Amino acid sequence: MQAAFMQRGKFWVGTADDPTPGPGEVLVKSRACGICGSDLHAALHTEDFVATSRESGGAFKLTTFDPVVLGHEFCAEVVDYGTDTERAFAPGQLVCSVPMLLRAQPLAIGYDEKVPGGFAEYMLLSERMMLPVPEGTPITAAALTEPMAVGLHAVNKARLNGKEAVLVIGTGPVGLAVLTALKASHAGPIIASDLSAGRRRFAERQGADAALDPSVDDPFAHPDITRARELVIFECVGIPGMLDQLFLAAPQNARIVVVGVCLQTDQLRPLIAINKELSLQFVLGYSMEEFESSLRAIADGRFDVAPMVTREVALGDVEAAFRSLADPEGDAKIVVNPWLEAQSPGDVRD
Amino acid sequence: MQAAFMQRGKFWVGTADDPTPGPGEVLVKSRACGICGSDLHAALHTEDFVATSRESGGAFKLTTFDPVVLGHEFCAEVVDYGTDTERAFAPGQLVCSVPMLLRAQPLAIGYDEKVPGGFAEYMLLSERMMLPVPEGTPITAAALTEPMAVGLHAVNKARLNGKEAVLVIGTGPVGLAVLTALKASHAGPIIASDLSAGRRRFAERQGADAALDPSVDDPFAHPDITRARELVIFECVGIPGMLDQLFLAAPQNARIVVVGVCLQTDQLRPLIAINKELSLQFVLGYSMEEFESSLRAIADGRFDVAPMVTREVALGDVEAAFRSLADPEGDAKIVVNPWLEAQSPGDVRD
Repeated sequence: MQAAFMQRGKFWVGTADDPTPGPGEVLVKSRACGICGSDLHAALHTEDFVATSRESGGAFKLTTFDPVVLGHEFCAEVVDYGTDTERAFAPGQLVCSVPMLLRAQPLAIGYDEKVPGGFAEYMLLSERMMLPVPEGTPITAAALTEPMAVGLHAVNKARLNGKEAVLVIGTGPVGLAVLTALKASHAGPIIASDLSAGRRRFAERQGADAALDPSVDDPFAHPDITRARELVIFECVGIPGMLDQLFLAAPQNARIVVVGVCLQTDQLRPLIAINKELSLQFVLGYSMEEFESSLRAIADGRFDVAPMVTREVALGDVEAAFRSLADPEGDAKIVVNPWLEAQSPGDVRD
Repeated sequence: MQAAFMQRGKFWVGTADDPTPGPGEVLVKSRACGICGSDLHAALHTEDFVATSRESGGAFKLTTFDPVVLGHEFCAEVVDYGTDTERAFAPGQLVCSVPMLLRAQPLAIGYDEKVPGGFAEYMLLSERMMLPVPEGTPITAAALTEPMAVGLHAVNKARLNGKEAVLVIGTGPVGLAVLTALKASHAGPIIASDLSAGRRRFAERQGADAALDPSVDDPFAHPDITRARELVIFECVGIPGMLDQLFLAAPQNARIVVVGVCLQTDQLRPLIAINKELSLQFVLGYSMEEFESSLRAIADGRFDVAPMVTREVALGDVEAAFRSLADPEGDAKIVVNPWLEAQSPGDVRD
């Protein structure tokens, strides 16, 4: 089969043996697989990313310098079953799955050199982890189940009571997932903030009542925010200095949900947070239930994710797609379709 | 009147005019006034403390380099009333008050050069802020109303659900106040941790089920902690590095209440907190209701604070008391009695 390999930031399309499903496993076709911010980190800062992943013992991150086939935000199609399987879904059925293969030592699909991720024609899933994609759901939308589960989880961890104004800082894919989940939960008013005009447009599409350029308009001075008696801030940037900056800007008693993943050591002044009695909730990942809810909400339209998918690209265009994602003005979510002929730039074709 | 003055860490007993109560104000005798950790900071690191207080705009901190009469944890006795007062309490009545004088620009009693704090024979209170001390309450115990309100507030902000194990890191006066409030709320099991043997003994008296020396026994490995499904950690040390250390040591989903006041910029690794989905709640001060609750709980014995008061000293011994508080093995709470003859070291005499 064809697969897009990555090693220390270099990409190439190569041939690999078709994977063979083991006991309890299913051979699937990868039909669409999103490029995640973590994939960008893994490719652009492999040394740091591997070092940090190894140190923190995280299950969903690259811990090898060997060539890997990335891709953990996928929608796939059932092809064949291994032994010890119930075979509930017919070949051709579209499925999603938490990107984990349940072997004696569970493998992180999309970050492990032993099995391919979604940037390959075929991959392996654990039958127990597969969820059928409801009929009529666009394939590229179903592929967003995983990143949307991240947004849903962050919103769940915020334990909103319905009385808060909400501020989303940073509206890259993670911020957009948070916005989409916030909108579906009828939270609000929702103000978004991003330096990029392109991202602000996506933020408004995904549910922000207003999307501000913080270099021009202080989001904390927006009337919806100053009027609110409670404020929840979703930090979706994840670079050093963001937390201290929020400490300075936030009003008394604000609750900060830390969704952006800052890989470096950060500096902050606790006294500022103490004086305002701020709280921080760090969040990561999602539960199985949240993954299922995310797929259901995409299927029934509560999570309107279609506008987020700006391009579908072939395996041969993965490297160019990674490069172009460095520019925040361009794409929101690029989805890799391993069955598409290479042609840069591709269009959404669902 | 006699008063203990402090300027840039130097102490002296001097004579000052008796204060004159203005409209709505009451002249009181200071009968007992605790030495607070913030007083130590203000005296030992005046430059830093004033700079930080000015920067953060905090109401309860030293913002002057002029001589001040410190002391904001007091029990006082009504002497005389100014104009526009209701005079509900007869002279001789013992009272407590939030340390704030309600003038056009409110003054922080115990940190302002314009009015004396509790380390003087007389002081001024706002009548509206005064609470009568229930009869039979020891004077030195009533003087602990303010620091105990700090502990009560921290426990309230933790929103305990009764299912958590609790870890109190650092059992100086703030940690002891937290322990006392935890015990009264029937939280637990409660494990305390402090490097000082003396402080560990106080921790056990104030309600810790066990008090560990973290250089010998890892508090996170205590069976009460490892067995617990939920853990709340009260950080009562307030020095740089503590939060990062707790990030490393804490189990998944632990909630950290930051009670210790770290005045410096701190460094931490968000990724560790993200991987464990930790939360931080920064806390400060207390509400009027919590101040009242604290006095009530001291009066009816739910807050058993008597063991915490290890010495009562005269104005002339204030400087020596400040020096001796640098040694964690010695005292828990030293209370200044402006009406006591100087004699180092004094004993509790209530």
